[in-house]
Amino acid sequence: MPERIYNFSPGPATLPREVLAQASEDIINYNNTGMGLVELSHRSGEFMAIAEETEALLRELLNIPANYKVLFLQGGASTQFAMIPMNLLGAGKKATYLNTGTWAKKAIKEANIIAEADVAYSSEADSFNHVPDQADYSVAPESEYLYFVSNNTIYGTQFKQFPQSEKMLVCDMSSDILSREIDIKPFGLIFAGAQKNMGPAGATVVIIRDDLLDRTPDSVPTMFRYKTHADKGSMFNTPPCFAIYTIGLVLKWLKKIGGVAEIEKINREKAALLYKAIDKTDFFKGHARENSRSMMNITFNLPSPELESRLVTDALDAGFSGLKGHRSIGGLRASIYNAFPRQGVVDLIDFMEEFAKKNG
Amino acid sequence: MPERIYNFSPGPATLPREVLAQASEDIINYNNTGMGLVELSHRSGEFMAIAEETEALLRELLNIPANYKVLFLQGGASTQFAMIPMNLLGAGKKATYLNTGTWAKKAIKEANIIAEADVAYSSEADSFNHVPDQADYSVAPESEYLYFVSNNTIYGTQFKQFPQSEKMLVCDMSSDILSREIDIKPFGLIFAGAQKNMGPAGATVVIIRDDLLDRTPDSVPTMFRYKTHADKGSMFNTPPCFAIYTIGLVLKWLKKIGGVAEIEKINREKAALLYKAIDKTDFFKGHARENSRSMMNITFNLPSPELESRLVTDALDAGFSGLKGHRSIGGLRASIYNAFPRQGVVDLIDFMEEFAKKNG
Repeated sequence: MPERIYNFSPGPATLPREVLAQASEDIINYNNTGMGLVELSHRSGEFMAIAEETEALLRELLNIPANYKVLFLQGGASTQFAMIPMNLLGAGKKATYLNTGTWAKKAIKEANIIAEADVAYSSEADSFNHVPDQADYSVAPESEYLYFVSNNTIYGTQFKQFPQSEKMLVCDMSSDILSREIDIKPFGLIFAGAQKNMGPAGATVVIIRDDLLDRTPDSVPTMFRYKTHADKGSMFNTPPCFAIYTIGLVLKWLKKIGGVAEIEKINREKAALLYKAIDKTDFFKGHARENSRSMMNITFNLPSPELESRLVTDALDAGFSGLKGHRSIGGLRASIYNAFPRQGVVDLIDFMEEFAKKNG
Repeated sequence: MPERIYNFSPGPATLPREVLAQASEDIINYNNTGMGLVELSHRSGEFMAIAEETEALLRELLNIPANYKVLFLQGGASTQFAMIPMNLLGAGKKATYLNTGTWAKKAIKEANIIAEADVAYSSEADSFNHVPDQADYSVAPESEYLYFVSNNTIYGTQFKQFPQSEKMLVCDMSSDILSREIDIKPFGLIFAGAQKNMGPAGATVVIIRDDLLDRTPDSVPTMFRYKTHADKGSMFNTPPCFAIYTIGLVLKWLKKIGGVAEIEKINREKAALLYKAIDKTDFFKGHARENSRSMMNITFNLPSPELESRLVTDALDAGFSGLKGHRSIGGLRASIYNAFPRQGVVDLIDFMEEFAKKNG
């Protein structure tokens, strides 16, 4: 095995090499303190500085307005599926959800445990191969928010334009946060697990408009209240220090290469190259409809499941890992988040063309 | 600053040097896969093997019976304060709590949000300087469980013998798990944040008797149900991979040095040395009553707050970090968990004796 392979894993996913190199040093002796990074008290000056810098970088890179809080929580996106209705709805209230895949469905299930989810659109009958257009659904007038998943990791679909609504938007951006420029203002809440575009597993970023912090019913336990964490700068209890630190390194890397505007250009080009290769031949067939195609997760099929298996195996031998599609739709999936290098896409295309020639 | 100092932090805390060295390598390229540890998919063969080995080691070291599940969760002990009553009580039910410090109080608060906490004992009026004897309290007959904190990090107290009760025990062992041999069978549930005796922040271990998994009311969201995680081997969603991996390394280290029986001997000796130094002179005064003294967190005072501050500062200059006591009781605290080396205790005692001579 070479020292480094191309890792197309959907998450946890590839990270910049320089981030790993820095973490490797700091874990032994952080900044010459004589203590390893994960041995630092979360109340120490060193770690507080890391946490503050990480938040400041995220605010800068995403241009987050001052009336939004940025939280670093635990429990993954799956915990947010429950915390959002626990905090923003409560019994007897309603919110509108767009069902564009597995993760949207899971969020709908939790909303229905706590309150009522009005499912205004579903692409399930089409194997979730697209996201809706604005004209395809309407939002119930009594809904508190409109919930959607900006990028559907499993199916390889993505909203090109975000929904427009009089209601505030609530969005699961786990798989495309920081991959393109966005306007935060229409959102009441954005959340994202770190392990795709931001860092390792173990931290979830929540960006919440501060007027929403006081809505939570008294029956909600302390740890599940956004206000608990907002009031304490995500230090109500011991935070996931290593994940926050690594997010900080990834954000520094992103800033250095030019920020979100620059990575968006690179992401657009990487995805365009791969879709072009898929469209060039009948051997490959994209799963997502063209106007819903994701820049992050490129899903496609081959003429048979046997050929798909062979491609996964041959690719691994050639140094391309993690290309097997999710079991729910099969086929192939190339996850090419921010940190996935352009050269890896170019090399994969060469490999795919060669494979098509041999097996087509 | 020397390459390595003695870190008395109460958590996140010092870890074995060889654990950090291994993590430092694996984070760049795990086991020659060409991928860094935190880049591995949690569904990969490599990470599944790590998770399985970590659970197996914990079961072996703590001699956990087969009818208990071991879960690796997120959200810290503070999340358990709510999850326990959410899963084991529900509205209208009651459990007995022993109030022996800040963390017990927080657990009581959450229990009262969800059900009813019967507080059978409190040492608050004595600055939490002791834990109760068996004769000091009784458990309400209608209680579902008896909840206690085995070691109180802030106050430096510890149960020498666990409570005896007809009711099942539920215990926060965050700050002394794996530090001494225990019998799991009287417990319905044990939980512990990793960041003191097991690894870095970001994972919480829950050991739960499997007949308790089916008690949870339907109104509890999916992520807050123990059964969700038990049914999926803690892989319902992306787990805190780095923390689980590092716990695995710490457990391997513990097994290598002789397991829990051996570390208990070492812990007893380290604590005895330090208490002996404290008792030798009137200059130092232990906070905890003698029969409640903790082996993990040794709390003590000096004749004045000024002298206490000076000791913290001078100690830092001499390479002893993290000795400042918690703000709620002031004074000094030396946290000497499993991974804290005996030599560090010996050196601290020399330093303390010198300091007492100069300032006494």
